[in-house]
Amino acid sequence: MKIGMFDSGVGGLTVLKSVREAYDKVDIVYLGDTARVPYGIKSKETIITYAKESANFLINQNVDMILIACNSVSANAMEALQETFDIPIVGVIEAGVEAALKSSKTKHVGIIGTTATINSNKYQERLEAFNIKTYGKACPLFVPIVEEKLINTDISKKTVEFYLKEFKDLKDIDTIILGCTHYPLLEKDIREFLPHINLVSSSDAIISYIKDIVKNEGDATTKLYFTDISENTSKLVEYIMGQKYDLKYINVESLSINC
Amino acid sequence: MKIGMFDSGVGGLTVLKSVREAYDKVDIVYLGDTARVPYGIKSKETIITYAKESANFLINQNVDMILIACNSVSANAMEALQETFDIPIVGVIEAGVEAALKSSKTKHVGIIGTTATINSNKYQERLEAFNIKTYGKACPLFVPIVEEKLINTDISKKTVEFYLKEFKDLKDIDTIILGCTHYPLLEKDIREFLPHINLVSSSDAIISYIKDIVKNEGDATTKLYFTDISENTSKLVEYIMGQKYDLKYINVESLSINC
Repeated sequence: MKIGMFDSGVGGLTVLKSVREAYDKVDIVYLGDTARVPYGIKSKETIITYAKESANFLINQNVDMILIACNSVSANAMEALQETFDIPIVGVIEAGVEAALKSSKTKHVGIIGTTATINSNKYQERLEAFNIKTYGKACPLFVPIVEEKLINTDISKKTVEFYLKEFKDLKDIDTIILGCTHYPLLEKDIREFLPHINLVSSSDAIISYIKDIVKNEGDATTKLYFTDISENTSKLVEYIMGQKYDLKYINVESLSINC
Repeated sequence: MKIGMFDSGVGGLTVLKSVREAYDKVDIVYLGDTARVPYGIKSKETIITYAKESANFLINQNVDMILIACNSVSANAMEALQETFDIPIVGVIEAGVEAALKSSKTKHVGIIGTTATINSNKYQERLEAFNIKTYGKACPLFVPIVEEKLINTDISKKTVEFYLKEFKDLKDIDTIILGCTHYPLLEKDIREFLPHINLVSSSDAIISYIKDIVKNEGDATTKLYFTDISENTSKLVEYIMGQKYDLKYINVESLSINC
């Protein structure tokens, strides 16, 4: 079984890490589009174009399924990808919604993510279909704070307070979905500021979500491709994965040419 | 006279604003590559590819000269552009260096910018050729803080302190170059933390730097092209320029196809 995963950059590695821990035998091919990161501030049309290019690349690597390890892509390009390609394609949003439904007793759920994810309204729509009351909040500084490794600092705490202070007053909310793959790294800061709220991470939620599709069989290979590899890319991969990897470069122009 | 300007996003608009105020009759075509912003965390090779595409687009718009309104591009792709294209091409770095040489009495100069700009060592090399002692510091969070309009807040102050605290101890430094086009918007925060230091902005420095090339003649048109236009793009253009503009979309794929 070969699982293809893609993200706009390194954030999706939190998903890869969870998947690898749960399924130790499958082969995984990961593509991070670091040449064009971040997607979260870009328009739907641009995100769809990039997502199709990434999915196409993975299909050319003979993957059996695609896991969209990026909330901005799941929110904006899921339908477009499922219409275009024939293999199973799953996204982190469906998984996060499923986990939030299990978690919330009050039926009031918060969602935090990038501007593109929150504005897409996808989490909100899916939860509201189950009569959940939702509160979405975009937190654009969280990703650069994680990528600057400033978690658990004055800056991360002030920024968590800035974005999440309204959740202090929304007493009915008992669950917040971490709707961005970077956010699990800020979990401690967020938990400290909102100790009474249950945090749902799509990186974890995906494991049970894909259990009927994935067979834990294969050679346990992990290939990491990136469209740009700077010194920081290698450092962040090690920071998130907890170990070094041999990173493979794929030219971003070749993604569009082969699409 | 038609001036072409380009940047990885909206930051170069601080340069456009200065140029427009100084030269009220010239025609200006601006290209912001918002579909692939930010460049500052990307590798030299990727930045050169994108810069060539942007310069080529502007030349197809019949500009008489190109002003690289982006420090990451000036630092990494200036030579490659000058080798590839025949019209005058000037960058913000040369302008910033010239202004710093005029400003510094102690011959000790700090440079702050994106990781790509600081790692390129371009500012440092040019200043050191004039026997200036230099101190470079990358400040990756400054751009997203400006783009979140969080200037002059607790978060911007803590972040300024985090990145610039070592300049408190470097007593010999009397001048810091704001080596990123976004940074003039943080000038007040930085000035408050380092009141004894003279801040040199390349957005301002460019005016005197180009005075021998530019004739103030034309129809005073300003055309703004972007490779991605989200709600936030329009808001940021207005935030930086102080007025609304009609933004034109250019597909990022067409930049590479026509190059």
